[in-house]
Amino acid sequence: MSTFKKITEADITHFKSILNDSVITSDLELYNNDWMNKYKGNSSVVLRPKTTEQVSQVMKYCFKENIAVVPQGGNTGLVGGSVPVNDEVILSTQLMNNIRDFDHVSGILNADAGCILETLDNWLQERGYIMPLDLGAKGSCHIGGNVATNAGGIRLLRYGSLHGTVLSLEVVLPDGTIMQLGKPLRKDNTGYDLKQLFIGSEGTLGIITGVSILTPPKPQSVTVALFGLDSYEKVLEAFKASKKNLGEIMSAFEFFDQPSLDLVKKHLGLRDPFEGQSPFYCLIETQGMNKEHDDQKIEKLIENLMENEIVSDGVLAMDQSQQTHFWKIREGIPEACAKEGGMYKYDLSVPVSQLYEVVLNMRQHLREKGLYHPEKEAPITNVVGFGHVGDGNLHLNILSTGRTKELEEAIEPYVYELTRSYEGSISAEHGLGLMKAPYLEYSKDIEFINYMKMIKKVFDPKGILNPYKYLPQ
Amino acid sequence: MSTFKKITEADITHFKSILNDSVITSDLELYNNDWMNKYKGNSSVVLRPKTTEQVSQVMKYCFKENIAVVPQGGNTGLVGGSVPVNDEVILSTQLMNNIRDFDHVSGILNADAGCILETLDNWLQERGYIMPLDLGAKGSCHIGGNVATNAGGIRLLRYGSLHGTVLSLEVVLPDGTIMQLGKPLRKDNTGYDLKQLFIGSEGTLGIITGVSILTPPKPQSVTVALFGLDSYEKVLEAFKASKKNLGEIMSAFEFFDQPSLDLVKKHLGLRDPFEGQSPFYCLIETQGMNKEHDDQKIEKLIENLMENEIVSDGVLAMDQSQQTHFWKIREGIPEACAKEGGMYKYDLSVPVSQLYEVVLNMRQHLREKGLYHPEKEAPITNVVGFGHVGDGNLHLNILSTGRTKELEEAIEPYVYELTRSYEGSISAEHGLGLMKAPYLEYSKDIEFINYMKMIKKVFDPKGILNPYKYLPQ
Repeated sequence: MSTFKKITEADITHFKSILNDSVITSDLELYNNDWMNKYKGNSSVVLRPKTTEQVSQVMKYCFKENIAVVPQGGNTGLVGGSVPVNDEVILSTQLMNNIRDFDHVSGILNADAGCILETLDNWLQERGYIMPLDLGAKGSCHIGGNVATNAGGIRLLRYGSLHGTVLSLEVVLPDGTIMQLGKPLRKDNTGYDLKQLFIGSEGTLGIITGVSILTPPKPQSVTVALFGLDSYEKVLEAFKASKKNLGEIMSAFEFFDQPSLDLVKKHLGLRDPFEGQSPFYCLIETQGMNKEHDDQKIEKLIENLMENEIVSDGVLAMDQSQQTHFWKIREGIPEACAKEGGMYKYDLSVPVSQLYEVVLNMRQHLREKGLYHPEKEAPITNVVGFGHVGDGNLHLNILSTGRTKELEEAIEPYVYELTRSYEGSISAEHGLGLMKAPYLEYSKDIEFINYMKMIKKVFDPKGILNPYKYLPQ
Repeated sequence: MSTFKKITEADITHFKSILNDSVITSDLELYNNDWMNKYKGNSSVVLRPKTTEQVSQVMKYCFKENIAVVPQGGNTGLVGGSVPVNDEVILSTQLMNNIRDFDHVSGILNADAGCILETLDNWLQERGYIMPLDLGAKGSCHIGGNVATNAGGIRLLRYGSLHGTVLSLEVVLPDGTIMQLGKPLRKDNTGYDLKQLFIGSEGTLGIITGVSILTPPKPQSVTVALFGLDSYEKVLEAFKASKKNLGEIMSAFEFFDQPSLDLVKKHLGLRDPFEGQSPFYCLIETQGMNKEHDDQKIEKLIENLMENEIVSDGVLAMDQSQQTHFWKIREGIPEACAKEGGMYKYDLSVPVSQLYEVVLNMRQHLREKGLYHPEKEAPITNVVGFGHVGDGNLHLNILSTGRTKELEEAIEPYVYELTRSYEGSISAEHGLGLMKAPYLEYSKDIEFINYMKMIKKVFDPKGILNPYKYLPQ
């Protein structure tokens, strides 16, 4: 099917003339596979430019020669967006990892796309600032990849999405043109905000080589509390009360259900901080500038939640190690689910009020199909829900004894139809990649998709960047 | 020059068949002129649709007939973007002013494009929320126009730009297609974020008919303080100290220079809250959820600023009427400047640290040209600087005894060249419109402008929407 040029020795020689020793042609396992071992490509060459100019030269050549390219950052994605489908050349930003500059007054950071998120965050913390995003993969994901996939994570509730915090991008277009999209300024109303198209474009329009981002001041105080609740309605009430009581210092409001906690206890051996059981749990975090004030606010919230019987149980972390413990429970859920056996993972956006209906509906649906029974043995062993309530983002994990065609067909496209019925999104934060491209129509209508195709054509007329993905073929 | 169809009686009849009585063909003064009386068009018809479907029918007809259309909201812009240049049909959103729905848990508001900003804010306040933007024109500007021009204003520092808070848009494309750009969800990573192109596109890509926006909880406590400072460096130090001491509750950090205050006193008769004079002033506002905490934080900041001799003078507003008074001083500057005589207004973004250099440089430049002398009579009477320090947004007003060709040529394009030398933006928040379209190249390079033209072509192939503006002709 591929209409792209197959790489020859002459191409490799040319790449070496641009990049010297930064061309890899053997032991490409780590680059050809995603970390879940779910997606596997067959590229024969990885290019690791060190400068934007080198990226430009590589792309100029690939454009002329009609060579397909997949840009790769930390390769931590969940939808197969960063590994080749066939034999596309892999262009890795691994060696582009310089911090370019930082403005201590405004908090504006300029960095190479290949900087690792955690490295940037540590660097900033020493200077009294933090990165405005935080996610599980922070130890390996690149800021360029974060921007390309519009990464969300656990602090979006507080600091907003990358569409608000990214101020400008340096990109290399498929034909090798280096373009500055915007400026490292908070306000700039001169023309279409083209950088926004690249945020979340998953490497299909150009290669992000530099990122300028607004970073918030480092908080001076953190509190974390865990609550047990009797119903999802109570979770919503707790969310409203938290917004009111904590206001500006609320930095995370996460929830998970009882099966999630059971799995974490079973597979990760984490201690349950509660005596009894509750059908729902929520984790609330504050980050602020004044410990005394923040402690008072969270205590007042706890009082309020207890008095009004919104929560049935609650624990406030007494020190940092307890905070870490509470976060481990929440963040350990995906890992614990994976240890249970087979897994079908979905990352959905649904209006907050109806978020958990999706879990209940899916359980019912699978029960009716005879594939799931809470008390009997069945191929589906569990349907668990957790996620970022504050963002209306549900992570729905369907656990099974193994992955079969029958199970998959029982779940998909039903899960996407269900999401559409709530006017939701079939990908809240993970993106489309290879996995969800065929299902795009469940979240976007045909006119929208046609305009996406026209935009793709404007920037990548030959379609050489990250082919076969993102857009329905 | 116009290649568009001239409106005929038959066209009017057709528009009436779509809109009934909402077609105006006389007394069009208010629609043909901007509120500064600087830009004047010559349209013979104003269309005021009530529904998105009507907008669609109007655009379908105009597209087929090659009739040029200028979308108009509250018509409060400063760059001539919302009035016709020639005889374009004016499509006003005045009668599209319904609140569609509001989610009390997530704070997501869906509203018609023609809702007035202040009306929405008042409506939300009764429900415990506020609009995430606030600007001088709030009593007449429309939310659709705010989005179309990516309005900034005084709370951007706190709640971020519309690129972060607008969740989805309903738009009508030039050919009449109704398109839903995104969904009223906080997270949605399915495809290019096309709505972002429309934010700040100034009516050149499509007509915004509906806006879905994330609204923050209403603050429970507000404090306002004014300070006098000896240098711009001290303003920057005060900004850093405020970020640290106030953290998440800082909602505005504005500055103005001594000439600004003098003008406000002279023309608006506002009482000077200070005994002595300072070359610089800053206004700091907090908005929070706990009065006691917020008062403590601002008091601690004042102590800190005094002890470290960052400020030379300071007053904390004791009640709401004093708060209003302080804000009037800051917000009255443009009006006071206008009363002085001629005025050349610029709205620039510059890296925060160098913001005031622009004012000093401009004074020096005009002095060297013999047009300005601080102690003698000269055509330029004053060069004043004020604005949103937190956003790196300088409002530069050059006051004169009158507007002449000589003065204009002494100022432009010098002011744009100067801005470019700081890698700044020639339009921080006012947009391009008719005024700045010819100067776009001072902020965007030619490749960027070419891609802008391609994007325009994708959405508006006949160029019928808001012609002659935004893009260099």
